Amino acid sequence: MNGKIVRALATIALGAIIWFIPVPQGVTPQAWHLMAIFVATIFGFILQPMPIGAVALTSITFTALAGVLKPAEALSGFSNTTIWLIVSAFLFAKGFIKTGLGRRIAYVLIRAIGDSTLKLGYTLVLSDLIISPATPSNTARAGGIIFPIVRSLCTAFDSEPGVSARKVGSYLMQTAYQGNTITSAMFLTSMAGNPLIALLAAQALHIQITWGQWALAAAVPGLISILVVPYFLYKFYPPEITKTPEAKALATSELKKMGAMSRGEKIVSMVFVGALVLWSTSQYSKLDATVVAMLAVVVMLATEVLEWKDVLEEKGAWDTLIWMGSLVGLADFLSKLGFIPWFAKAVAAGIAGIPWVPAFVILTVVYLYAHYAFASLTAHITAMYSAFVAVAVAAGAPPYLAALALGFMSNLCMSLTHYAAGPSPIYFGAGYVDQNTWWRLGFIVSVINLVIWVGFGSIWWKVLGLW
Amino acid sequence: MNGKIVRALATIALGAIIWFIPVPQGVTPQAWHLMAIFVATIFGFILQPMPIGAVALTSITFTALAGVLKPAEALSGFSNTTIWLIVSAFLFAKGFIKTGLGRRIAYVLIRAIGDSTLKLGYTLVLSDLIISPATPSNTARAGGIIFPIVRSLCTAFDSEPGVSARKVGSYLMQTAYQGNTITSAMFLTSMAGNPLIALLAAQALHIQITWGQWALAAAVPGLISILVVPYFLYKFYPPEITKTPEAKALATSELKKMGAMSRGEKIVSMVFVGALVLWSTSQYSKLDATVVAMLAVVVMLATEVLEWKDVLEEKGAWDTLIWMGSLVGLADFLSKLGFIPWFAKAVAAGIAGIPWVPAFVILTVVYLYAHYAFASLTAHITAMYSAFVAVAVAAGAPPYLAALALGFMSNLCMSLTHYAAGPSPIYFGAGYVDQNTWWRLGFIVSVINLVIWVGFGSIWWKVLGLW
Repeated sequence: MNGKIVRALATIALGAIIWFIPVPQGVTPQAWHLMAIFVATIFGFILQPMPIGAVALTSITFTALAGVLKPAEALSGFSNTTIWLIVSAFLFAKGFIKTGLGRRIAYVLIRAIGDSTLKLGYTLVLSDLIISPATPSNTARAGGIIFPIVRSLCTAFDSEPGVSARKVGSYLMQTAYQGNTITSAMFLTSMAGNPLIALLAAQALHIQITWGQWALAAAVPGLISILVVPYFLYKFYPPEITKTPEAKALATSELKKMGAMSRGEKIVSMVFVGALVLWSTSQYSKLDATVVAMLAVVVMLATEVLEWKDVLEEKGAWDTLIWMGSLVGLADFLSKLGFIPWFAKAVAAGIAGIPWVPAFVILTVVYLYAHYAFASLTAHITAMYSAFVAVAVAAGAPPYLAALALGFMSNLCMSLTHYAAGPSPIYFGAGYVDQNTWWRLGFIVSVINLVIWVGFGSIWWKVLGLW
Repeated sequence: MNGKIVRALATIALGAIIWFIPVPQGVTPQAWHLMAIFVATIFGFILQPMPIGAVALTSITFTALAGVLKPAEALSGFSNTTIWLIVSAFLFAKGFIKTGLGRRIAYVLIRAIGDSTLKLGYTLVLSDLIISPATPSNTARAGGIIFPIVRSLCTAFDSEPGVSARKVGSYLMQTAYQGNTITSAMFLTSMAGNPLIALLAAQALHIQITWGQWALAAAVPGLISILVVPYFLYKFYPPEITKTPEAKALATSELKKMGAMSRGEKIVSMVFVGALVLWSTSQYSKLDATVVAMLAVVVMLATEVLEWKDVLEEKGAWDTLIWMGSLVGLADFLSKLGFIPWFAKAVAAGIAGIPWVPAFVILTVVYLYAHYAFASLTAHITAMYSAFVAVAVAAGAPPYLAALALGFMSNLCMSLTHYAAGPSPIYFGAGYVDQNTWWRLGFIVSVINLVIWVGFGSIWWKVLGLW
């Protein structure tokens, strides 16, 4: 409790200090005060004197109380279409988990190709990849669908936390986790914060990143990462058991237990394929991604694959609605009131004279490793993406290059820590990988991804004509 | 399942028929199509092929899919300040229930004056009245705070559903319920739909109903109803036991068990008084009611009276957010696109020539008894309030008279059925009052309230200079 009070006071103090700093020229007091609240909010997300939802609610309440924004403006994030894409995504993922379709997909893959630990690792990542375009909650995907399978595989090989952890468990846990990091970066709809990236890029740079563009730009570096990272872990952090015929047997027996596909699984499959088709063609059909996700939820409700109580009990959706809805509302007005452009201009003036290539590399590296200070990908995006992308472009970097590179880094930074994002505490909490090992592996993987995505990626985007 | 499909088809058919009716002159096709969706939504709320939240979600998804509204417009209700007053109210009420403060208030009252069944009835209503200004969820108040006390009182008197129901149970259940009907009407913040009434009145008539005005206008008819209704039930539906010294003993022992006020209770008391003060002075301080409610929630979170998981588990809040948020968004655009003014004008033309007094009485009576077709006060308000108030004023009724009378009827209609609003199924489900009796008592009480509120009330409002 005392610790909480100290952290609360530190958060408030930081906000107060910024609030009372003389307002720099070129910024309105209103924008400056909003920025003070915003910075204190992000600081509060990191220190967590209260859960982040409560911090966010406090922030918008104070924003309205202090008259920095009108009540309706402070609440405006709650009707943001991006927010409702995320809420719908949580509900969509619930259909995958509830019907068991996600488990079935993974087991089918394991039965087909899972006779060695390395192949098993690839199979887990591949399963994640297949469902990733339709499960924007990477936490639901990694934690709700893949994790239970990894955990039961470990048990099948007598690999438990402790002395037997390294048999297969440590390798599989870390591979599934790092794989999720990569798949999160690969689609506009494979991580909740990605549509936000597209939105912020549109706000800051006036460029449109469509679902198809994102997928195409991520395809080459993504597939290289998926090939390289599990193999790197296999060599650098090897499992003690390498041949795993048991996995096929387990998968076969589990699939037998599951029997034929249930009505619910069939419906979710169809909804899944339908949503994929609509999402991937949205640049032609002009159908909004949020409406597609809502339609998917409505179909699952109408067919009773999802019950209404499943919706109401999906706490992740309501938690995210509140903290992210609050933050998006604040961030939106931070931009509207002119703070972000002013900040980017000021920083750009600071790196004036440096050629754009080193400036861009510095910005990308700083952006990536800043995630040591975040416990949420989306908080990182909301706090830093707009400003960094604006500065990069102001320094001379091509807009699509800057938007995509920083967008992908927004996901790949998840490799770093055991609290980096929703899936992290789940895989860390299983007890197969200690904190030091996690941070060491995470740092090396982040360097590998940086080289693949910015190095090879920028060539690929040049080929695509994006810059 | 078959019944559900029939009800779903009926709902869709009604919407389709209206959609394809040739659009009358003076209405845009867009407004007409939105109206078709809106009517089908309300019809869906009544038939319930799915829970109302799922019906509402389907409606806004279809609205966006069909291009009647843009996605952001269809979602706009979710950032409505009224909606977040309701969400905050659910959380505020949780503080009352969780800390036991509501129970304590009731027991203190019972110990002081509860030595006869009649007095007990009055005491329950009085307890409800005292907490009503700060618990806009009348369901939380009636169901979460008062109901457990009524139920334990019944048990204390060996009055169980069945042969012993009439001992004290039937009377107390019905009195507490009908009392809640009255208290719901008495404050802008004593029923979730009341701020919506003020909002709709502002939209339709451009008049402001403040918290203080509402309370003042409701005070005289409300107190008369509170005096009359429990006494009427006592005479017309008498309990078999009339002297209840046991109640005092029960209250004394329960209060002893509860011990001194806990830290949580003290905090909720202070927050409660603070919110009351801020709400009742908001016309001077210009503090928004929603911001006050959010501040109350934030204080309860910061002091850990409420935990964040309490917030996420408050399903009533999320359910209401979705169905009411959807509906408010649609209703808002129904008005913005010009349908409501057109409809009111058309109906007004139909009753042209009738003097305003009989026209107003007819409208009020029709509005009140239309609630037989509703399972939610707010749905009733959203569907009918704007149009009826506009028609009444078009017919010549003074704006404040029309706005207040129909506003109060929006609450008093709760007396009618066992499915009228959230508290109804709770009290009905206890098994002390059968359906026929409920409807008979409910109808008579509605007539009594109609006479008191429109009869005496209109004189009082004249005295206040509201018309």
